[in-house]
Amino acid sequence: MTALQNDRLLRALLREPVNVTPVWMMRQAGRYLPEYRRTRSRAGSFLNLCTNPELACEVALQPLVRFPLDAAILFSDILTVPDAMGLGLHFAEGEGPQFERPVRSEQDVAALGVPDPEQELRYVMDAVRLIRRELGARVPLIGFSGSPWTLATYMVEGGSSTDFKHIKRMLFDRPALLERLLGTVTDAVTSYLNAQVAAGAQALMVFDTWGGVLTPRDYRQCSLRYMARVVQGLPREHEGRRVPVILFTKSGGQWLEDIAESGCDAIGIDWTTDLGDARARVGERVALQGNMDPAVLYASSARIREEVTTLLASYGHGSGHVFNLGHGIQPDVEPEHAAAFVHAVHELSPPYHL
Amino acid sequence: MTALQNDRLLRALLREPVNVTPVWMMRQAGRYLPEYRRTRSRAGSFLNLCTNPELACEVALQPLVRFPLDAAILFSDILTVPDAMGLGLHFAEGEGPQFERPVRSEQDVAALGVPDPEQELRYVMDAVRLIRRELGARVPLIGFSGSPWTLATYMVEGGSSTDFKHIKRMLFDRPALLERLLGTVTDAVTSYLNAQVAAGAQALMVFDTWGGVLTPRDYRQCSLRYMARVVQGLPREHEGRRVPVILFTKSGGQWLEDIAESGCDAIGIDWTTDLGDARARVGERVALQGNMDPAVLYASSARIREEVTTLLASYGHGSGHVFNLGHGIQPDVEPEHAAAFVHAVHELSPPYHL
Repeated sequence: MTALQNDRLLRALLREPVNVTPVWMMRQAGRYLPEYRRTRSRAGSFLNLCTNPELACEVALQPLVRFPLDAAILFSDILTVPDAMGLGLHFAEGEGPQFERPVRSEQDVAALGVPDPEQELRYVMDAVRLIRRELGARVPLIGFSGSPWTLATYMVEGGSSTDFKHIKRMLFDRPALLERLLGTVTDAVTSYLNAQVAAGAQALMVFDTWGGVLTPRDYRQCSLRYMARVVQGLPREHEGRRVPVILFTKSGGQWLEDIAESGCDAIGIDWTTDLGDARARVGERVALQGNMDPAVLYASSARIREEVTTLLASYGHGSGHVFNLGHGIQPDVEPEHAAAFVHAVHELSPPYHL
Repeated sequence: MTALQNDRLLRALLREPVNVTPVWMMRQAGRYLPEYRRTRSRAGSFLNLCTNPELACEVALQPLVRFPLDAAILFSDILTVPDAMGLGLHFAEGEGPQFERPVRSEQDVAALGVPDPEQELRYVMDAVRLIRRELGARVPLIGFSGSPWTLATYMVEGGSSTDFKHIKRMLFDRPALLERLLGTVTDAVTSYLNAQVAAGAQALMVFDTWGGVLTPRDYRQCSLRYMARVVQGLPREHEGRRVPVILFTKSGGQWLEDIAESGCDAIGIDWTTDLGDARARVGERVALQGNMDPAVLYASSARIREEVTTLLASYGHGSGHVFNLGHGIQPDVEPEHAAAFVHAVHELSPPYHL
């Protein structure tokens, strides 16, 4: 193994000293880049792009050509796992993801198996291997999965939802059935992330997009508990280095203390939580990743720079911060604005590491 | 003035002793009731229903016929105010509200005037007077408005939004323009709520549906500051009684301490905040309204009762709690489930007031 030329991300996630605050952007390989749109168009569909390792690798590397980002992230979709569990994923044009066979009954849950990542999800593992090879020793590669709760919402609702009616009815009226479903999904996610590490992922992130629609009690019971189980089931070291794990619950700012107890190395936070307060609340237990309002990227470069300045000051001195947006970059942001953001973090952060 | 037969709501909002925890439901006059759907169908459109005082009164009173609710609330829409400011509100079938003339430029903002509630919004004031007369002395009538920030989001975006791109661009790149817009909307809201009190509203609620999409700093600067100005501009007493004001910021659970400083009497909270924690955080400063997950109403009556039990215990002994959902009741809830909810609050709460 060649040593990483830039390991700021891994060091910051473990709260080890760095010279510069590392930065990457959620959805950095995405529609705001014209080169992404060209590859996406060549692929014919979003699913084709996800399932073709060469194309997935191509788009994963595109933002690193443009910007001096401190990490690459696997290009994939969180719904590959339920798809591999047999639910039949498709994307209707202009609509969200849909599953042909939602999971609602005892029979539906009992029928679910845990996919073998090197079989049913082989295309993802091939993408991880390919991206890792193409990256060389430049920056680390982040692997990811949806959280068990978040995946279960899509599986039970049959797609995107605003009211989460079916899964909440299951939660309130058939809690044992939901528990069984979440247990199976947890096994699938754990196996999937383990395979990503074996294939070359050097850090992991769990996206809990929908944990924030729960009460605090139900969040702990139905989302955090299973994410903690996933964390427990991961290899903490690979290729002689610790593999840090980031948990990101959108709208989870009220629960940072609980999340910090899960065994994760870092917590992703959205922009509705003050970064300095978050640091004070989690103390030395975990690192933090975030949390600029993605809408700031619509503003001028000067304003973007000002916001980066504010956030760096809010976090304060020392390591343990990975700069990121509080959510994915919007498709209609100008790439030049993303460049201004990344450059500002690198240029303005060194004084905080003296 | 005849004294109110049931003034639990007003007493609880002012943290005065009660025998039973008062309860009402956001959107209690709504599509989950077949009688509402019949009146709505007779009206021809949602806007016709809002602008016809007789029909608005009819639907406002419908839930009180079915359930022993402790309050009525004006039936209206938060967008009546920007409509009266000349933006041209319409509802495309199956889509959200839209404004013909969104507010984006200096000229757009400069052209805005503050409507006279007894002229441009006369139909709302007539509805308040009519509902109040029909209610008699049974329970108090709650008047309401959208918050300045929330109304401004619709005015600048031209309708509903998920990314709030235009108003956030204004916030980051043209803060003085946004400040001017929010100032005008604040004057309009203050005048509107004053007129509702003069017309008979006995408590007021400000719905800040979109304050939760802001950073903590921007929330304080762009939403809370203007809600506090509205509160300062309201009559604190009318007909010999204090008129309590409730501020409800959806997804604002992280900012309760700040909201409690605004001068309001009560804070509405959604279900993502623990009720007992919220009480500990705001102390004796304000009452709390909420906060059952509306999805619990999809569950069985037994489960609804269990959740009411949990929430009553979470708040604990003493006054200062108005039971409600954490958000509006869903259109596909069975009315019997709403009945089970209201009855459970009345039946199970007295021990907490001994």
